[in-house]
Amino acid sequence: MRRILIGRPLTSEQEIGERLSKKKALAIFSSDAISSSAYATEEILRVLVVAGSAALSASIWVSLAIAGLLAAVATSYRQIGYAFPSGGGAYAVARANFGLVASVVAAAALLVDYVLTVAVSTSSAVEQIASAAPALAPERVLIGVAAIALITLANLRGVRESGNIFAIPTYLFIGGALLMIGLGAARVLAFGGVAATTGTPSPRPLETLGIVLLVRAFAAGSVALTGTEAIANGVQTFQPPEPRNAARTLTAMAILLGILFVGITFLANRYGIGPADGPQGQTVIAQLAAAVFGPDSAGFYAFQVVAALILFLAANTSFNAFPRLAAILAQDGLMPRHFSFRGDRLAYTVGIVLLGLVASMLVIVFGGSTTALIPLYSVGVFIAFTISQAGMVRHWLAERGPGWVSRLAVNGLGAALTGVVAVVVAAAKAPASLLILVMVPALAGVMLLIRREYAAQLTELAVRPDAVIGPPRRGERVIVPVPQMNRAVVQAVNFGRSISDNVVAVHVTDDIAAGESLRAAFSRQLPGVPLVIVESPYRALVEPLVAYLDHTWQEPDLITIVVLPEYVARHWWDQLLFNQTANRLKRALIGHPNTVVSIVPYRRE
Amino acid sequence: MRRILIGRPLTSEQEIGERLSKKKALAIFSSDAISSSAYATEEILRVLVVAGSAALSASIWVSLAIAGLLAAVATSYRQIGYAFPSGGGAYAVARANFGLVASVVAAAALLVDYVLTVAVSTSSAVEQIASAAPALAPERVLIGVAAIALITLANLRGVRESGNIFAIPTYLFIGGALLMIGLGAARVLAFGGVAATTGTPSPRPLETLGIVLLVRAFAAGSVALTGTEAIANGVQTFQPPEPRNAARTLTAMAILLGILFVGITFLANRYGIGPADGPQGQTVIAQLAAAVFGPDSAGFYAFQVVAALILFLAANTSFNAFPRLAAILAQDGLMPRHFSFRGDRLAYTVGIVLLGLVASMLVIVFGGSTTALIPLYSVGVFIAFTISQAGMVRHWLAERGPGWVSRLAVNGLGAALTGVVAVVVAAAKAPASLLILVMVPALAGVMLLIRREYAAQLTELAVRPDAVIGPPRRGERVIVPVPQMNRAVVQAVNFGRSISDNVVAVHVTDDIAAGESLRAAFSRQLPGVPLVIVESPYRALVEPLVAYLDHTWQEPDLITIVVLPEYVARHWWDQLLFNQTANRLKRALIGHPNTVVSIVPYRRE
Repeated sequence: MRRILIGRPLTSEQEIGERLSKKKALAIFSSDAISSSAYATEEILRVLVVAGSAALSASIWVSLAIAGLLAAVATSYRQIGYAFPSGGGAYAVARANFGLVASVVAAAALLVDYVLTVAVSTSSAVEQIASAAPALAPERVLIGVAAIALITLANLRGVRESGNIFAIPTYLFIGGALLMIGLGAARVLAFGGVAATTGTPSPRPLETLGIVLLVRAFAAGSVALTGTEAIANGVQTFQPPEPRNAARTLTAMAILLGILFVGITFLANRYGIGPADGPQGQTVIAQLAAAVFGPDSAGFYAFQVVAALILFLAANTSFNAFPRLAAILAQDGLMPRHFSFRGDRLAYTVGIVLLGLVASMLVIVFGGSTTALIPLYSVGVFIAFTISQAGMVRHWLAERGPGWVSRLAVNGLGAALTGVVAVVVAAAKAPASLLILVMVPALAGVMLLIRREYAAQLTELAVRPDAVIGPPRRGERVIVPVPQMNRAVVQAVNFGRSISDNVVAVHVTDDIAAGESLRAAFSRQLPGVPLVIVESPYRALVEPLVAYLDHTWQEPDLITIVVLPEYVARHWWDQLLFNQTANRLKRALIGHPNTVVSIVPYRRE
Repeated sequence: MRRILIGRPLTSEQEIGERLSKKKALAIFSSDAISSSAYATEEILRVLVVAGSAALSASIWVSLAIAGLLAAVATSYRQIGYAFPSGGGAYAVARANFGLVASVVAAAALLVDYVLTVAVSTSSAVEQIASAAPALAPERVLIGVAAIALITLANLRGVRESGNIFAIPTYLFIGGALLMIGLGAARVLAFGGVAATTGTPSPRPLETLGIVLLVRAFAAGSVALTGTEAIANGVQTFQPPEPRNAARTLTAMAILLGILFVGITFLANRYGIGPADGPQGQTVIAQLAAAVFGPDSAGFYAFQVVAALILFLAANTSFNAFPRLAAILAQDGLMPRHFSFRGDRLAYTVGIVLLGLVASMLVIVFGGSTTALIPLYSVGVFIAFTISQAGMVRHWLAERGPGWVSRLAVNGLGAALTGVVAVVVAAAKAPASLLILVMVPALAGVMLLIRREYAAQLTELAVRPDAVIGPPRRGERVIVPVPQMNRAVVQAVNFGRSISDNVVAVHVTDDIAAGESLRAAFSRQLPGVPLVIVESPYRALVEPLVAYLDHTWQEPDLITIVVLPEYVARHWWDQLLFNQTANRLKRALIGHPNTVVSIVPYRRE
C-alpha cells in the first residue's frame, strides 16, 4: 500500500540525479510567482472599485508601479543567489548578517508564507475551476482539501517526479496567457476600446479616488511578487554551476511575470472587467478569458483548466521549499531533528505531511476564499523580503568586494521598498494581517525555545574533555519475566546467561499452584536459573513486577537488566495480536532507575 | 488532561466495591430492554399502516403476542443466569454445549448487536429530542455522534460512576411512562375512545390486513425484546449471591417492560396515533405524551427528556457488555489480547473505544434513522437468543439434574420461538437484515483466524517438556553507536563494559576529520574502548551501521548487543525533540538476526 502511494525507495546515490535543469526549475520554482498573475489584478480592482467603475482604469498605473517593484526585488534576489548558494533564503542571509533572532523571525515568516502559498494558490485554483463550472462552487473547500492531499502524496514520491508531472502545465499557462494577452491587445489596437462581453454592473462609488486608495490598491496588488524568492532559496537544487543557472532562471521568471501581470491588468481595464461578484462570481482572468476567447469557447475552458493547474503547481512550490527550510532549521537545532530526516524517497517526510495538514486547515477555516487569505499572505512575504534585503545591505557593507557600491545600492533600494510595502500592507489590511504579526513572533519564540532545549541537553550531557573514565565497578543482574515455558523465554534466559551469572526468571500470577508447576518444569529444563513467583491477586502484571524489582534492589551499584522477548512481526496484523504485553512492560520499565531493558527478538518458524 | 477526562487511577483492590446492587443493576442492565418500549410500538404501526388506519388496531394483539414471547425468553434467561453465573451469555452457553464454531458465531452476533444497540438507542434518543424540539432535527447525526462520545468518556471512567450518573433517569422514565399509561388509561375508561390531539392523517390503504402483514408486524415489534439477555450476561457484576440477585432483577425488568410496551401500544391505538410522518415527524411516544400531558405542557417536555435519557442509558448498557465479552473472548484467544487489558480505571479501554467508534460510524452511515437500523438489530439479537436457548436444551439433556424436564421445556420453547422469529425477521426485512447474515459469519471467521494465529504461536514456541537446556556457549559483542562524546554515550559504554569484554563504539559520519578528532578524545577519555569510524557520504545513519554489523559478524555463535541511550522524557514535547534517531535505529535493529537491542535510559539533570 505504502509502496503504491509513495513509490519504491531511492538510494542516496540517486540524489545528484535529482538535480533540476533550468527548464524544470522554472516549472517548479516559478509557478508560485507567475501564478500570482491569476489573482493580483483582481485584488487591485477589488480596492479601486469602491471609488466607482471609472476608478478602475487607475489599475494600469498601479500595476506598472508593482512591476517596477518586481524588477527591484528580482535584481536584489539575483545577488542573494550568488552570495548564498547553499539556500535558505531570508533565513540564511539574516543568519549570516544579523545573527540569531532576526534569522529566526525571517525563518518563521517564510514557514508561515509557505503554508499560506499552499492555501492561497489552492483556493484560487478552485475558484478558477468554479468560474468555468459554477456547479462546483459550493464544494470549493472539499475540492481544495482533496487537491492538497494529492499534492502531498506527489511530493512524498520525491522531487524529480514532481518536476516531470508538473513541467508541461506551467509552460501551457505561460503560453495560454501570452496568447490571450496578444489576441486581446491586437483586438484593442485594431478596434480601440472593446465592450466587456461579461463583467459586473457598475457599482455606485463609495469613495473618491485619492492617494490613500491608490496606496491600498498598490498594497493589495503587491501579492503579485509572492514567490519571487523561491528560486534564490533553492539554488542548491540546480545543476552546476548552480548560482548562474538560478540567476538566469530568476530573470526569465521576472520578465514573464511582469508581462503577464501588466498585460492582464491592461486588458481587464480595456475590456471593462470588474472584480468577481461575490464568492460564486467569475474571477477577473476568467472574465477576461471569456471576453477574448468567447464565453463558452473551448479556449475559455482550456485556459481555466491551465490556470487552475499552474495554481496547484504554485502550491507545489511550497512543498519543495517548506520541508527544505525546515530541514535546515532542524540541522541548526531550531526545529525538532526529525524534520531533517529524509524518508525512503529522499523526501523530507515530516515537513511535507505537516505542510499539507496545516494548509488544509487554513483552507477549511477561511472557507477556501483567496481574498480572505491574501492579507495574511502579503504581510509575511514582505517581512521576509525586507529581512533578506536588509541582510544583504549589511553583507556588502562588511565585505566591500569589487563593485560593492552598486550591489549595496540594489539591495538597499530593495530593502527600503519592501519594508515600506510591508508596513503599508499591514496597515491597509488590518486586522487580518495582524494575525500574522502574532503568528510569526510566536513561531519564532517556539524555535528559540527548541534551541534552548537542545542546548541544555548538550550542556547537561557534556563530559569534561579532560575526564578519563575508567571501567565500571558495578554489578549487574538479569531479570527475565516468564509468562510460561516457551522458546522465546528460553532464548531470553540464554541471552541473560551469556551476559551475566546472576539471572533470575520472574513469573507473575494469581494462580500459585500453576506457578509451582511452572517452577518445577523450569528447574528441570533450565537447571541453575531460579524462578521467582510473584503473586498478583488481581491479574495485574506490570505493577507487581516493578514492585519486585524495587524490593530486591539493594546495592546502589547494582544495575538491573530486564530481558523482554519481542516477536518480529511478519504481517501487519501481527502488531495487533502480539507484543502488547511486552510493550506495556517496556513503557513501564524504560526510565526506571538503574534499569536497562534488553529486547531479544524472536521469530516463529 | 487525561486525568480530568478519565479520572484518577483505581487500585485493583477497589474492584469488589464496584459490584452492583440490584437497583443499580436494574438501572444499568435493563435500560436497553425497557427503552425498547420507546420505539417497538412505532415499528409495529409502521408495518400495519400500509393496510390503512383501521388496521392499526391489530397492533394491540401483536403486542400481546410479543409480551408472551418476552415472558418465555425471560424465563429461559433466568435459568441461563443460574447455570452460567460467570457471564458471557450466548457465547458461554454455546461454548459449553456446542463447542467452538457455534459459540464464535454467537459471540459475533452479540458483538454486532452491542454495536447496533448503541447506534439504535442513540438514534432513537435523538429522535425523541427532535420530537420535542423540531429545530434540532437537521442536526440528528451530529447530536448522536456527540452523545456517543460522551458515553464513551463516561465509561472510560469506570463502571460504578456510570451507575451513579445513570440510575436516576431510568427510574424517572419508568415512573413517567407508568404515569402516562395510568393517566391515559383512566381517561379512556372515563370517556371511552379519545380523539388524537396530534396524529398523522389517515393514509390510503395499500394492502389488506392479512396473516403476512400480521407476521411482519410481529417481527418488527419483536425489537422490544432486545436487551433481555443483558442481565444474564452480566451476572458476575452483581453483589453476592449473584445468580439469585440477577434472576430477581430480570423478572422485575420483564414485568416492567411488558406493562410499558403493551400499555403504550394500547393507548396509541385508542388515541388514534400513527407512526412518525417522515424523518422530521414526531415519534409515537412523543405523540402519545403530547396527547396525554398536553401538546406544549411541561409534562410533555419532561417525558421526552426522560425518554431520551433512558435511550442514552440503553446505549450505555452495551458499553458495559461489549468490552466485557471482548475481554472474555480475548482470554480465550479469539480476540487480540489487548481487549482483556484493563486500564487505570479498571475499564477495558480498547473495547470501549472501539465500540464508540464503530457505533458512531453506523449512526453516520444510516443518517441517525432508528427505522433503518432496526432490521439489522433484530436479526442479530434473535440469532444470539436462539443459540443460547438451544445450548440450554443440550445442557439439560446432558445434565438431567433435579427438575430437568421442566427446565428443558422452558428453554426448548424459548429456542423454538426465537428461532422462528429470527427467520421471520430476516425474511421480512431483507435486504438490510441480510447485511447481518454476512457480517456475523465474517466476524466469526476473523475470530477463528485469530485463534489459529495464537495456537500456531504456542505450537511454534513450544519446548519439549523433556528438553533440558544447558547454559549457552556463545560469545557476545557490544556495539555502542556514538554520535558524539557525552554522558549518555559514557553511560551506554559503561553498561556495555559491565556485561562484556568486547565493546566497540561506532561513529557514523560523512566528515572523516571530525571523526578522527572524536576518536582521539575517545581513546583519551575512554581508554580501552575502540572507536570505529564508518563513512556515510550521504549522511545516512541506519543503513551504514547495519552494513557494518553485517560485515563484521563472522561466527554463527556471536550475538551482537546494540546499546542505545534513550532519553527519559520529562515533558510531553520532549518526545518531539528527542529519541527520534534512537527510535529509527531501534526499529531497524529489532528483528535483525542475532542482534539484541539494549536500551539504557538517561535523564538530564
